[in-house]
Amino acid sequence: MPDILHRVGIKSSSPDDTYKALTTCDGLSAWWTDNTKGENKVGGVLQFRFGERGGFDLKVLELDPNKRVRWEVIDGPEEWIGAEVSFDLKQDGDYTIVLFKHQGWKKPVEFMHHCSTKWAIFLLSLKSLLETGKGAPYPNDVKLDNWN
Amino acid sequence: MPDILHRVGIKSSSPDDTYKALTTCDGLSAWWTDNTKGENKVGGVLQFRFGERGGFDLKVLELDPNKRVRWEVIDGPEEWIGAEVSFDLKQDGDYTIVLFKHQGWKKPVEFMHHCSTKWAIFLLSLKSLLETGKGAPYPNDVKLDNWN
Repeated sequence: MPDILHRVGIKSSSPDDTYKALTTCDGLSAWWTDNTKGENKVGGVLQFRFGERGGFDLKVLELDPNKRVRWEVIDGPEEWIGAEVSFDLKQDGDYTIVLFKHQGWKKPVEFMHHCSTKWAIFLLSLKSLLETGKGAPYPNDVKLDNWN
Repeated sequence: MPDILHRVGIKSSSPDDTYKALTTCDGLSAWWTDNTKGENKVGGVLQFRFGERGGFDLKVLELDPNKRVRWEVIDGPEEWIGAEVSFDLKQDGDYTIVLFKHQGWKKPVEFMHHCSTKWAIFLLSLKSLLETGKGAPYPNDVKLDNWN
């Protein structure tokens, strides 16, 4: 099955800061979507909303402090249901490296191409948040195409 | 085998303009790397160089005007050799849609994660070039991580 994979390096940062941006609603609101709610604990559900376009409900599967965050998609677009989204963190010199995976796509549909590029945009927003203090979460995200 | 997939929409543009940016050295130099040379014809070889980091030699496999461009990697990093890179173009309303694929990775290694995000950065540079007249090719590309 095809996966979406990304790697981002956050300069002059520690995995601790990145972990906070991935595991608090304040953090997630500052780089993915400003409409983020829910319970950030294993078994809890996070709601991410993107205005009229709807959004995703993600169940927290794993929280390994400063190392790993893993979610399961339990509601959202049909192609996303059941998929897993994960972030693995490590230090490499002056950088915190984030290895991102969105796994469980049944087919490499056109929507998967869109989501792959859009994830890159949001991960660059996460990088910007941690390096400069300012991310670009929805609705201020970089618009990519006619699917937004 | 895992693939890198992306989708970018270029506003108020025609596939003809995008095709030119993918099939001329002037076009490619304006969004990917300013050091682009070679023969833009089927069977020809294009050289893309990124300073000390080396680069790629890509053989042109297919040129279908305003529809499709397909290259084979014949020299570059070991993980890239033999892979195919393709761009499929279509009009969708006011947008030219680019469906991008980098296929033929043997394993989802960490370098593949990096290349996936880096391709997104360069495709956003292509979008910017066609929408605003100004891309961000190497050496002015957005730096992503400690692999650059």
